[in-house]
Amino acid sequence: MAARSVHHIGIAVDDLDVAIALYDALFGGSVEHRERVEEQGVEAASLRVGSSRVELLAPLGPETPVGKFLAKRGPGMHHVAFEVEDVAAELARLRADGVQLIDEQPRRGLFGLEVAFVHPESTGGVLAEFVGNG
Amino acid sequence: MAARSVHHIGIAVDDLDVAIALYDALFGGSVEHRERVEEQGVEAASLRVGSSRVELLAPLGPETPVGKFLAKRGPGMHHVAFEVEDVAAELARLRADGVQLIDEQPRRGLFGLEVAFVHPESTGGVLAEFVGNG
Repeated sequence: MAARSVHHIGIAVDDLDVAIALYDALFGGSVEHRERVEEQGVEAASLRVGSSRVELLAPLGPETPVGKFLAKRGPGMHHVAFEVEDVAAELARLRADGVQLIDEQPRRGLFGLEVAFVHPESTGGVLAEFVGNG
Repeated sequence: MAARSVHHIGIAVDDLDVAIALYDALFGGSVEHRERVEEQGVEAASLRVGSSRVELLAPLGPETPVGKFLAKRGPGMHHVAFEVEDVAAELARLRADGVQLIDEQPRRGLFGLEVAFVHPESTGGVLAEFVGNG
């Protein structure tokens, strides 16, 4: 099954307010949604950049996934999210193909959408996310 | 000025044919264009993934920019390209703001489009590309 589009690009940042101002100045990005997601250890801002979307992710602490990412690689591109019709069906399809998944079942992401992550080990080093319609 | 959209996501890969097959299997990506760009030391494949675009980049040798990227960071996300109305105007605007540019003038990229890269130092660690209409 083909993804419908790239839903967003996730970018790890040190400081969310600084990054929001920077993306506005550089690319005309405007915040459409901002949310603190405690269970993922992240404060996220979804930006519209023209017809596309960029998600800025700041860690709530050094021991969170994004905190560890920043400590290891520094700020920068973190993941790519693909919009699909049915996240659970995509997971089932990939599992049957032996693809390594991070999320075995869809879970709630930003905006209350269904999301699931695929392990970079199976995607050529890219942390890939599926986003559905929830 | 606001970018119109994310034109593509650039991904560094070790083997272009393997990556093309993988992106087809995982996300239903299909090749719309493939090109060897000697002066950039890269063989590139532009894939449509639904209404979006992913650019796979394989180095022509270890001493090329993508070859060095792979040696340092391994395969994965390499750059984000934003589509803009006028690449030269964007460069002038950013230069006036003190943004560090890689390309001081637009140059030819894939598809013969005008492109220019902005230094990750000025974008929070993201290698950013502007793509125009050439």
